[in-house]
Amino acid sequence: MDSLELMKRILIHLLTVGWCLSLSVGPLSHSGRAEEGMWLFNDPPKKAIQEAYGYEVTDAWLQKLMRASIRFNSGGSGSFVSEDGLVISNHHVGADALYKLSREDRDLMVEGYLAGALDQELPCFDLELNVLQAIQDVTDQVNAAVPEGASPEDAFAARRRVMADIEEASLKETGLRSDVVTLFQGGAYHLYQFKRYTDVRLVFAPEQQIAYFGGDADNFEYPRYCLDFCLFRVYEDGQPAKTPDYLKWSANGPDEGELTFVSGHPGRTSRLLTVAELEAVRDIVLPARLNRLKQLEVLLSAWSARHPENARRAKDDLFGVQNARKAFDGALAGLLDPEFFAARVDQETALRIWLRSNSGQEDAGAAHERIAVAQLELNRISQRYGLLERGVGLGGDLFGIARTLLRAGDELAKPSGERLREFGEGGLESLKLRLFSEKPIYADLEILKLTDSLTYLASQLGVGDRVVQQILNGKSPAARAAELILNTRVGDVSIRRSLFEGGAKAVSGSADPMIELARLVDLESRTLRSVEETQTEIKRQAHGALARARWERDQAGGYPDATFTLRFTYGQIRGYEFQGQKYPAWTQVSGLFERGNLMDFQGAFALPPSWEKAQDLLPTTLPANFVSTHDIIGGNSGSPVVNRAGEFVGIIFDGNIQSLVFDYAYDDVVARAISVHSTYIKETLRRVYNAESLVRELESGRRAL
Amino acid sequence: MDSLELMKRILIHLLTVGWCLSLSVGPLSHSGRAEEGMWLFNDPPKKAIQEAYGYEVTDAWLQKLMRASIRFNSGGSGSFVSEDGLVISNHHVGADALYKLSREDRDLMVEGYLAGALDQELPCFDLELNVLQAIQDVTDQVNAAVPEGASPEDAFAARRRVMADIEEASLKETGLRSDVVTLFQGGAYHLYQFKRYTDVRLVFAPEQQIAYFGGDADNFEYPRYCLDFCLFRVYEDGQPAKTPDYLKWSANGPDEGELTFVSGHPGRTSRLLTVAELEAVRDIVLPARLNRLKQLEVLLSAWSARHPENARRAKDDLFGVQNARKAFDGALAGLLDPEFFAARVDQETALRIWLRSNSGQEDAGAAHERIAVAQLELNRISQRYGLLERGVGLGGDLFGIARTLLRAGDELAKPSGERLREFGEGGLESLKLRLFSEKPIYADLEILKLTDSLTYLASQLGVGDRVVQQILNGKSPAARAAELILNTRVGDVSIRRSLFEGGAKAVSGSADPMIELARLVDLESRTLRSVEETQTEIKRQAHGALARARWERDQAGGYPDATFTLRFTYGQIRGYEFQGQKYPAWTQVSGLFERGNLMDFQGAFALPPSWEKAQDLLPTTLPANFVSTHDIIGGNSGSPVVNRAGEFVGIIFDGNIQSLVFDYAYDDVVARAISVHSTYIKETLRRVYNAESLVRELESGRRAL
Repeated sequence: MDSLELMKRILIHLLTVGWCLSLSVGPLSHSGRAEEGMWLFNDPPKKAIQEAYGYEVTDAWLQKLMRASIRFNSGGSGSFVSEDGLVISNHHVGADALYKLSREDRDLMVEGYLAGALDQELPCFDLELNVLQAIQDVTDQVNAAVPEGASPEDAFAARRRVMADIEEASLKETGLRSDVVTLFQGGAYHLYQFKRYTDVRLVFAPEQQIAYFGGDADNFEYPRYCLDFCLFRVYEDGQPAKTPDYLKWSANGPDEGELTFVSGHPGRTSRLLTVAELEAVRDIVLPARLNRLKQLEVLLSAWSARHPENARRAKDDLFGVQNARKAFDGALAGLLDPEFFAARVDQETALRIWLRSNSGQEDAGAAHERIAVAQLELNRISQRYGLLERGVGLGGDLFGIARTLLRAGDELAKPSGERLREFGEGGLESLKLRLFSEKPIYADLEILKLTDSLTYLASQLGVGDRVVQQILNGKSPAARAAELILNTRVGDVSIRRSLFEGGAKAVSGSADPMIELARLVDLESRTLRSVEETQTEIKRQAHGALARARWERDQAGGYPDATFTLRFTYGQIRGYEFQGQKYPAWTQVSGLFERGNLMDFQGAFALPPSWEKAQDLLPTTLPANFVSTHDIIGGNSGSPVVNRAGEFVGIIFDGNIQSLVFDYAYDDVVARAISVHSTYIKETLRRVYNAESLVRELESGRRAL
Repeated sequence: MDSLELMKRILIHLLTVGWCLSLSVGPLSHSGRAEEGMWLFNDPPKKAIQEAYGYEVTDAWLQKLMRASIRFNSGGSGSFVSEDGLVISNHHVGADALYKLSREDRDLMVEGYLAGALDQELPCFDLELNVLQAIQDVTDQVNAAVPEGASPEDAFAARRRVMADIEEASLKETGLRSDVVTLFQGGAYHLYQFKRYTDVRLVFAPEQQIAYFGGDADNFEYPRYCLDFCLFRVYEDGQPAKTPDYLKWSANGPDEGELTFVSGHPGRTSRLLTVAELEAVRDIVLPARLNRLKQLEVLLSAWSARHPENARRAKDDLFGVQNARKAFDGALAGLLDPEFFAARVDQETALRIWLRSNSGQEDAGAAHERIAVAQLELNRISQRYGLLERGVGLGGDLFGIARTLLRAGDELAKPSGERLREFGEGGLESLKLRLFSEKPIYADLEILKLTDSLTYLASQLGVGDRVVQQILNGKSPAARAAELILNTRVGDVSIRRSLFEGGAKAVSGSADPMIELARLVDLESRTLRSVEETQTEIKRQAHGALARARWERDQAGGYPDATFTLRFTYGQIRGYEFQGQKYPAWTQVSGLFERGNLMDFQGAFALPPSWEKAQDLLPTTLPANFVSTHDIIGGNSGSPVVNRAGEFVGIIFDGNIQSLVFDYAYDDVVARAISVHSTYIKETLRRVYNAESLVRELESGRRAL
């Protein structure tokens, strides 16, 4: 599940020909377009905004936006839209929570949900929202802890230790979730302090058929008409939390060409990767991931088609798989464009020449080679690392749970700084929230996924491979998966708790077959992990040197690659023209019915019952979705779009096909972010869903009593 | 397309746990169940049938059945059901013809078709039906032409030459299409002489929604309710052909437990492969094919979902891909079952021990090793052979056409016996029928498929590979595919004719970009082909030795692995029990409406308009589909099921999940063939489709005037 959630966050690239016209390559290039950049809140491009729009971004304005912005631990972004803890995000970000709240006789994805009163707001399983309160630059402290000339292994251990120490001290001092994040691929380290909300309740969700109108077919397309939002509320001590830093609702939404801002959590970009790293992504990483994603898509689609309840159980996984597949297909297409690749080679060559021609750049001058060598080693282990440590060959939730329990036994006995990163004190509460979640786990779906992933494992490594033989234990993948899933007891949360609390002794005494399986692969898996960590450390140091050299060369900062940390971008609501066709700045609700009609209102184009009369209730010119030039990527889903006054005017939910290139380079000619218009949300709440009290809360910024 | 059509023919195996209970391994084993066997018409198991059922199969009875049986060149089987050339087959066998006859405004797959009179019968594109007239054993002649001690290359050339000579002489003498077929993996060679029908017209097809009710979801499942048949008529000289050898329609269909026969063209089985060959299938061939099939399934499904016309254009491909995917998934699951594999190892070990303990078996005694070594060489080239020579990396129809034109230029200048096998005189008319077909080819679908396959090619071999660089020619897969498809002229049949007729000179003078591409890869591709032919010849000789040794050991003949040649099997209509559940011998039409209702009559479970009132028109107890113990496999689709009187009682259209193991071994406990009941066909023609004159033709055996 973790790898899927990661994939969901990472969107990318392009499927069409001729997109590459106008790309500025790399975030630090001076040729960057005015609106390029996923900026850090503690290093905003105030001057550029002032020059382009005559607007002064103040620190107070930034801080309010930062504290109104929300990170979903399930992958995605959101914001506060009332002082009483009301949270807005995308339906597809909230879908994980909706899925976990559903049962065979109550499918919230299909039916939608509206809480008529506070006591009808539904507590979600293991949904954690983080709200950034402050950022500190701790680069010097982190680097100082790594001894000069240390081996990569020692450097990695020292760095891990100091980061854990900083996090633990911050947690103790402030009570806030504290993460030291790596920026510029190792060029900088910042301490992020978050307020955590773990009592999160569902307030409203439209039916998936309208939230995700057009489904996978229209995903990453435009024009669109999706009502892709839902509402949660955060609670503290059983009461709605007080959230004074919230976004006021705009009366009319945005104007065409108006300056607007997006604040959210772009998941990952690769704009600073070296050519050797990009080649590995193109030739190894993406082909392998796409191969597996398409297998999973076929598996889940075929199983879903047999019975409606199968479809309900597989829906959440299937969405994630299809979304990632479409994005990675675009990524691969982008990387296979020789013009694009040549531009990246040229850019790297220019930097190498500069490094050779300037004294004092010996360290950075060797950095590309060091990265290339480390990448070769990563390529070598990539297949087994993916299958065993990332769990691609051991699919389903239950194996992941068993492994977490096994490793928790070993890791929690160590000082925080010596543990595997995910077991550090700073994030331990979040790990426990996920581990002890009462979310439903379905044995049939688990068997299906484990059978398929064991088959994949055997096909990839060959039936004769030692670890394959050990894992299958003389049985077929189907028989082995059934045996494991039907006999493990880690599906029971009370068993998980007692194993977790019993520590290494309890876990090592357990004869649970899934824990035994996790133990069986752990030696090789940890060895692979250790190789991965060492080589990544080598790359991190080399990227740090390159980042410093670029700052020196360009005498300017910039923005780091996206890392699922909070960023803001600025841009305009603007249509575009592509292959002779004009795409408007926004769509109108009339277009929804036209598109549905063309597709005979079948499948992903069927409207939910509540919308049958909507055509009469809504003005045909009601704006639905709009496009803008903001520099976003997967993980930005659910990010608020705000105007100069800091008012909410829309919510990002997608990018067009042309924007999938944003993993590697920004473009503002045809690439666009796509948002739900604030007025579409307000008017459908009022006229289709009769949710008048929610409309009043949005308009007034406080809960209607 | 050829590789897809091949896949369609080759079904297989099993998805469930615990199927392996009762398999008899291998067709020549004495433990074989009574009803195992895909028998040659010139070597029928008369004695076994006599002993089991007290029924004497006569030569006259066999010959009539043989001449009433039809092979579809598009993959599948059929039979004559009136003396006026009326042909019945499966809807999914006829679907290729229906697809080619459809246009955006006339989708015969959706609408179905009923010709009200002769002049409404629609001539099909490039549909060739072959009807076997006679078989001759030419093993001695073929083997005599191969010099003792010849190298594998020389042996292959000599064998190819003598087979072409035999075919050419037979064609000249009889005017019949003449194929020398290889049986027992090289243990025997028979000359098959066919009457060819190329004027084939569509008479009736139900809507795909009822023919393929349940779609991919219910494919290979039981109970089923598919009306999977359609009717064609063969013409000669513009008039319905006279076909005195036809099957009379049974008045009531089959009884439970009744002895029945199936006559058809099983595509391929692997019951005689050695362990080394099976390992290659399990570890290399099936993983690679499934990988690619699932990519194609996702590609075609996603594209289909964007627009109804996309769906129509991709439907034929998508069916083939999904069908093969489900079958191969089952195949892989079967081969990954260690019990099954161990049984095959034991069987091979027993033969090896016998060979060592008996004098005069030196040649056969080394055969397993020779096969293993040849297989290693085939494994080595397998990836590039698949991508380049099988065309997996160069997808779509237009590349295949260009390559056929290119090679025809070179090959047709040679004597028939020295040509690549598919250009031999014996099959040349059939090749031309396909090559000059006016079937529609859609540029958008061609670009889609070529882009995807070029991407796959680059991902598999790496962008740096020399042939990848040459093929992409400095462009992205998307740009290169668009350039090729939009600029080639081989989509125009008149251009094809003039290039074909102009011979090598015309082709080598052509600057058509697709022909240039075919030329570019042809050197490597032919080299790979030659390696493949040589190693296959080594295996063929070794398998011949093994076949002779087994005959000697067992003092009994048997049946060869399936090769898309005509076979007959015998068996019973019989239900089964699996995991405590009983499955009836036949289903009733009431079950159709129950299954549809559970699935909300959505998607593949939606009934066509003509069936909306069918529930009132048809008796609820009308039999729909039945299961039987016949030994069949893909390619048998459309085979008639006949009773002792030689009457038509049903038509094979599928096997259950448990029957997918039939590629490797027969079982009669839970594995079943699935057929459409003859009465379901007759009564729906009468009551749902008001096709009274067709009903009279079926009942009387002659066309109603």
